[in-house]
Amino acid sequence: MDRNHPAFARLPPWVQSKIRPQAVETIKKVWDWVETECVPAEPIMKAQLANDRWKTPQLMHDLRAKAKAAGLFNLFLPNHFKESPGLTNLEYGCCAEIMGRCYWAAQTMNCQAPETGNIELLAKFCTDEQKAKWLKPCMEGTMSSAYSMTEPDRASSDATNIGCRMEITDTEVIINGRKLYGNAQWNEDLGIYILMGCSDPNNPNPWNRHTTVVVPARAPGLTMKRNITIMGYDHAPEGHGEYVYENVRVPKENIILGPGRAFEIAQGRLGPGRIHHAMRLIGQTERAYELALIRCTDPIKKPRGKLIGEFDSNIERIATMRLELDSMRQVVLNAADTMDLYGGKAAKYVIAQSKILIPKMAEEIINECMQMFGGQGLTQHTALPEMWTYARFVRVADGPDSAHKHQVGRDQIKTAPNIRERHKKYQQIHKQLCETHGVEYVPYGAIDY
Amino acid sequence: MDRNHPAFARLPPWVQSKIRPQAVETIKKVWDWVETECVPAEPIMKAQLANDRWKTPQLMHDLRAKAKAAGLFNLFLPNHFKESPGLTNLEYGCCAEIMGRCYWAAQTMNCQAPETGNIELLAKFCTDEQKAKWLKPCMEGTMSSAYSMTEPDRASSDATNIGCRMEITDTEVIINGRKLYGNAQWNEDLGIYILMGCSDPNNPNPWNRHTTVVVPARAPGLTMKRNITIMGYDHAPEGHGEYVYENVRVPKENIILGPGRAFEIAQGRLGPGRIHHAMRLIGQTERAYELALIRCTDPIKKPRGKLIGEFDSNIERIATMRLELDSMRQVVLNAADTMDLYGGKAAKYVIAQSKILIPKMAEEIINECMQMFGGQGLTQHTALPEMWTYARFVRVADGPDSAHKHQVGRDQIKTAPNIRERHKKYQQIHKQLCETHGVEYVPYGAIDY
Amino acid sequence: MDRNHPAFARLPPWVQSKIRPQAVETIKKVWDWVETECVPAEPIMKAQLANDRWKTPQLMHDLRAKAKAAGLFNLFLPNHFKESPGLTNLEYGCCAEIMGRCYWAAQTMNCQAPETGNIELLAKFCTDEQKAKWLKPCMEGTMSSAYSMTEPDRASSDATNIGCRMEITDTEVIINGRKLYGNAQWNEDLGIYILMGCSDPNNPNPWNRHTTVVVPARAPGLTMKRNITIMGYDHAPEGHGEYVYENVRVPKENIILGPGRAFEIAQGRLGPGRIHHAMRLIGQTERAYELALIRCTDPIKKPRGKLIGEFDSNIERIATMRLELDSMRQVVLNAADTMDLYGGKAAKYVIAQSKILIPKMAEEIINECMQMFGGQGLTQHTALPEMWTYARFVRVADGPDSAHKHQVGRDQIKTAPNIRERHKKYQQIHKQLCETHGVEYVPYGAIDY
Amino acid sequence: MDRNHPAFARLPPWVQSKIRPQAVETIKKVWDWVETECVPAEPIMKAQLANDRWKTPQLMHDLRAKAKAAGLFNLFLPNHFKESPGLTNLEYGCCAEIMGRCYWAAQTMNCQAPETGNIELLAKFCTDEQKAKWLKPCMEGTMSSAYSMTEPDRASSDATNIGCRMEITDTEVIINGRKLYGNAQWNEDLGIYILMGCSDPNNPNPWNRHTTVVVPARAPGLTMKRNITIMGYDHAPEGHGEYVYENVRVPKENIILGPGRAFEIAQGRLGPGRIHHAMRLIGQTERAYELALIRCTDPIKKPRGKLIGEFDSNIERIATMRLELDSMRQVVLNAADTMDLYGGKAAKYVIAQSKILIPKMAEEIINECMQMFGGQGLTQHTALPEMWTYARFVRVADGPDSAHKHQVGRDQIKTAPNIRERHKKYQQIHKQLCETHGVEYVPYGAIDY
Repeated sequence: MDRNHPAFARLPPWVQSKIRPQAVETIKKVWDWVETECVPAEPIMKAQLANDRWKTPQLMHDLRAKAKAAGLFNLFLPNHFKESPGLTNLEYGCCAEIMGRCYWAAQTMNCQAPETGNIELLAKFCTDEQKAKWLKPCMEGTMSSAYSMTEPDRASSDATNIGCRMEITDTEVIINGRKLYGNAQWNEDLGIYILMGCSDPNNPNPWNRHTTVVVPARAPGLTMKRNITIMGYDHAPEGHGEYVYENVRVPKENIILGPGRAFEIAQGRLGPGRIHHAMRLIGQTERAYELALIRCTDPIKKPRGKLIGEFDSNIERIATMRLELDSMRQVVLNAADTMDLYGGKAAKYVIAQSKILIPKMAEEIINECMQMFGGQGLTQHTALPEMWTYARFVRVADGPDSAHKHQVGRDQIKTAPNIRERHKKYQQIHKQLCETHGVEYVPYGAIDY
Repeated sequence: MDRNHPAFARLPPWVQSKIRPQAVETIKKVWDWVETECVPAEPIMKAQLANDRWKTPQLMHDLRAKAKAAGLFNLFLPNHFKESPGLTNLEYGCCAEIMGRCYWAAQTMNCQAPETGNIELLAKFCTDEQKAKWLKPCMEGTMSSAYSMTEPDRASSDATNIGCRMEITDTEVIINGRKLYGNAQWNEDLGIYILMGCSDPNNPNPWNRHTTVVVPARAPGLTMKRNITIMGYDHAPEGHGEYVYENVRVPKENIILGPGRAFEIAQGRLGPGRIHHAMRLIGQTERAYELALIRCTDPIKKPRGKLIGEFDSNIERIATMRLELDSMRQVVLNAADTMDLYGGKAAKYVIAQSKILIPKMAEEIINECMQMFGGQGLTQHTALPEMWTYARFVRVADGPDSAHKHQVGRDQIKTAPNIRERHKKYQQIHKQLCETHGVEYVPYGAIDY
Repeated sequence: MDRNHPAFARLPPWVQSKIRPQAVETIKKVWDWVETECVPAEPIMKAQLANDRWKTPQLMHDLRAKAKAAGLFNLFLPNHFKESPGLTNLEYGCCAEIMGRCYWAAQTMNCQAPETGNIELLAKFCTDEQKAKWLKPCMEGTMSSAYSMTEPDRASSDATNIGCRMEITDTEVIINGRKLYGNAQWNEDLGIYILMGCSDPNNPNPWNRHTTVVVPARAPGLTMKRNITIMGYDHAPEGHGEYVYENVRVPKENIILGPGRAFEIAQGRLGPGRIHHAMRLIGQTERAYELALIRCTDPIKKPRGKLIGEFDSNIERIATMRLELDSMRQVVLNAADTMDLYGGKAAKYVIAQSKILIPKMAEEIINECMQMFGGQGLTQHTALPEMWTYARFVRVADGPDSAHKHQVGRDQIKTAPNIRERHKKYQQIHKQLCETHGVEYVPYGAIDY
Repeated sequence: MDRNHPAFARLPPWVQSKIRPQAVETIKKVWDWVETECVPAEPIMKAQLANDRWKTPQLMHDLRAKAKAAGLFNLFLPNHFKESPGLTNLEYGCCAEIMGRCYWAAQTMNCQAPETGNIELLAKFCTDEQKAKWLKPCMEGTMSSAYSMTEPDRASSDATNIGCRMEITDTEVIINGRKLYGNAQWNEDLGIYILMGCSDPNNPNPWNRHTTVVVPARAPGLTMKRNITIMGYDHAPEGHGEYVYENVRVPKENIILGPGRAFEIAQGRLGPGRIHHAMRLIGQTERAYELALIRCTDPIKKPRGKLIGEFDSNIERIATMRLELDSMRQVVLNAADTMDLYGGKAAKYVIAQSKILIPKMAEEIINECMQMFGGQGLTQHTALPEMWTYARFVRVADGPDSAHKHQVGRDQIKTAPNIRERHKKYQQIHKQLCETHGVEYVPYGAIDY
């Protein structure tokens, strides 16, 4: 590996040494792809989208075809799936960072959210028959999929609140309810919704009340009332819909895994996705940081006769961003590595760590980069405003920070009894030592047992 | 004054006691106006704008006519102007906070930026002839005006960099250059640009090189290349243009105050405007805070069985927001009061204090409010995203924080010699005391003289 | 008033205008006293204390006598007490800031904590007989007093937990329990403990279970086990004791106000004290800031050839400190003014605002000042380490931030129903407007009623 | 390795896998040593020190003898030294974290600062003859050493300012000057000062003006004026002295490496030491965190009827601390690993990252832990105040944050030209694509080339 190659230069040595030669080549290909085919084409994509906001631009179709031909499709699927192109989570994490440098680069490689999470879900839980219908076209990139869980009138940070009603008959599932988020029906590429609803509201176990079912994107009775904007951005042409289900009927075969098993599915879904999100955010923040560096050395911007980067205060800002960004990369790569070694369940904590720390950090650093650009930094003249608001969006995607922090905090407090035990032992020894050394015993430390 | 009236309840007692009875009535009228005519009409305004983004909506015209008839026009103009409706800066500050509760409420009362700054400028520096042409229609609300200073290829935080070329002949000013920001030419209500340019680039005194001139909004040679978006928002129907001046010619009579006197004008312009901005931001943040309180008590949002406002962590967040918001209000009202008592120059520091502290605080509090709304908080379902990005915008409007902090910091360091003198005196006394008390003299404090 | 006098220069104009001429003179006298008698004598006081840590130094006795003779004693007692020297809380606040410039200056004027709170308590709740015994010597400065509430094995942030047992017989109160904090018995000047204990543990109303009683400092059965250090500082010669009460007996006449009325007393006690603490912290932080300014211009400290104050990053730091410190002063002075105008109960919120915001701000600013001094900033060569740790101490004194934030937050959430009502009204008008204007009604704002 | 063993449980998997079996055993021994011999003995050490503050307590002598016998001496010396016990920097980092759990545990294993840095310096730069005299007794623990660089009247963050005068004659070095910091001469165990001074002030190259020389601790002419306290703590019995050198003469053989080569020595010295400091701080913060967990579950502390750890706000605090602490550990372990793989020079950036980020984080987390303990948290009843002030001390030790940030920031800005080159390429491709796709070229990104 050429450790000075920009795709590898900021990776910690332990990561560099874990990337296998074949993956090194893939990562370099991803770098070249993003740098030459994506980043410079950003304004073209924007211009094509301006013409028809709810149609995938031709450029995207072309790039997807080209990326697929180049073997750059579906890289995210971890190597324990038989459909996988063979990267570990750690190796793919390095790709995801690079993809994050351009808002839509991941999509050219069929590695965008929520597609990655959906494909993994379908690969993990579907029967072969179901896979043929849904997984195959998703992986081939001929169809896209949406995930639909959040509801407008529930506290979705606690998913047991999900209320969308599913009545399961002998042959059908009949669906009534409202959903928020989930890609827009308006884009004709969208084929299916993977929908979570409540099929057994009276089940005494709240974790067994919900079912996951596949709904065709234009099923009768399913209406998209409007597109939801995020800080005013429509995120077209995928968007985020607000949906009403009125007696939507799908065949019972569309149930995934079985009735009442939605939480088994949901729990497995988000782990890798959170790492992808986090790594892409890191790539995005790196790009914002590069813009800041360029601004710092822009010869036509010289307030009070100095380059922006000659102000000590900006030198400190640059350093602070660099240091924090590099710290955060280690956090996420460690989460990816933990998943590779011990699986998603063991990685629960490190995934939460990524989910909580990275979006906040990205929001703050990109904000600072914008500030270095002064008035221009907030306009469409740079990608910074989109990056900033997107980072903010990821902070609530998959639940707000506080919900995740509560989970981590409660788990931590469960470790307290062991630690109390240990401290009790300290005090026992301490008392003995007091006697030996003729010192008066005074309670010390947290508590006097 | 009814101290429990929502328009007064959060004002510090010293402010309450300074508001004269007539102003109490005006402030209450403003409150009623905003609460009944503006806030509830927000979605109507939005719908009308959706049809034609660069035309002032009919609703705005109607509300402006109604507000004018009700004596709620131009309230901002301080009572030392003969054209003033008679409020002090402090009293108007209370109005501005209320206006800030709705994004466009100030405009219904002809109190929006940059109109207020422009009107004040015209009232302060124009001849009677010029006033008849520009000030009168602006105050009557039949024409709007823009201010044009920032340039795309300069560090505008240091205004001596402004390069837009103005050639002054015997009869004309011939203008060539590029400008960023300044309301959109596309809106037919816009009548004039108040333009700052460089007419005497070789003048040895950099503060005498620039001239301010009035340019008709649709002068030949003046082209708006595009609208600048702010975090993706177009801020229509006023917007922010990107302009090219190519041999734009205006009569010499359009020069304000005289050639080379642009900085005299610019320096006076921003003081009150910064206070208006800051007070409106406080009103806006109050509204965000109210939404957070409502969310806290929303009976259908109960993660893990508790109202959002029953979580101790959210109780602390609510308290933190409340405390900081109230602190910031005092900062701005003190700046307004200082202007009333001692004028803009003496208030320079307190105005900078408002300019630096309030936008950052508003950005942070609104961000936190959004977070309490979870996924819904970022969508068009609440005004929060517009509030948040607008607060961020104000942080760079009139220059980034750091430029203002540098000014304050340099002024502070100029006070150091006096303080050193005082500390020197401490040490002289200290030495004498050491002798008297028979104590060894050891250098103490900052420095041993 | 000479607005440039350092005692007045940083006061907001509204405060300057409220200080009466006589108070102007007092404040100037306090300034001169602190600047000439206290600050330069700091090392002398330190040297005298080094000889005998638990004896009030002779210098302190001398200064107290001198200050008393100069009419600078007991300035804190608000003008509604007949024993008051006549200052308002606002005017005294200005004195307290000045006193805060030297750690022990307040004590020279008999204005130190906890003496001020105790004197106010005694003045407010004692009978004339009790006043003669305890209030008089305290105000004359011939005796000092301690307040004793916190306990080592309780969550004292909730005072209903206080467990120290008081048995009230016909003639006596018999006390058993343990106490933390409360000045050291070891200092012979200390005359009494004002002790809060539990006399009626089974009273159904938890607010009626406790009694306040005066205990002579060296009552039989009362033992001080050790002095409690604060960040290692012993705070001698007053200190903070850890006490055991074993069958301590005091006459029933020592009960203040009556059995079961401790909370009536406790609630009134802390208000003014919190303002004094906060203002003294502001004075202390001003002094730290002055040291930072001196360091910034120290000609022998030139890393990389520049004065410390010539680095832009330090210029920004200086500005940030200045701006925040001035904001905080306004917060506290507003609290004092509110107390003057509407009494302690109405000022509850603004007092909490001071209590929560100021110590944190002081801790942070002094920390930054220390950092500007590099390695020397942490040593005994400046007063900064004592200032920093003292600010940290004040942050927990009278309860940790979070306890106070919870109180504020809960009070705020009680205001939510009114705000919900108002928002409901918005939506009613909104619906009507939708009909009038032919616009589709879409729920907007927090909630759809 | 037992991954659940508390010595390994929080290590990232990549670290766990790099620790060799023999090192696993050593780390476990260090854990047992600290947990059974050090932590419980803290009050004994304190009591012994109280008797004679400038004498190493007997307990320390005993523990050092025992640790040496157990093969736990000098573990820090990296395995590329022939004197090394064989651990990598990474493996030793894990030991250092454990040592950090008790303030003086490292010293029992001869791994305390500044001894580690000094031993490494002597091992790296001394002749065999010099090693026999100084390195040997230091490693055997029969003598201790101090490093003396900082000066009271210089900006020591820029070491070229060092002024202590060294005159080198044919046989001697004659020293005159003042020094700050450097362990106390008063402790008889201290054998030598490794002193940096200015021997050739007129050398045109400022990096060749200084010389490092070994000075016997009680050389004639060398006086310790006083011990420097750190936040009031004397850090006895090692302390930090303030020194005057008056014509101190040492043989020329005491020069290390040669005249004018002090910077060669200084630059190599601090790298590993910064990692040790950082890892010990992490261990110290872990211990503070454990105390917080214990407090959270203390059954006798129930404000408003709930355990402290049942408040959501505290649950979030616990989570935040846990997440940040684990992130920081990764930062330091990566720095250690980078040193192992590529040496100190290549690790310069990651070492600076540790130096800048960890002390600040430790200071903040320990501060929060103290707050959870309320009034008791600041007293001598827990180790928290010592931990907090020590973390603050490490933040300035080896130079304040800003000096290190400036170095990182300046290095980063040097990378800007490459990045500008890359962005220029984007815009070239972008222009071509505009032609191909018939889209108007609009400058995008940072700069229009």
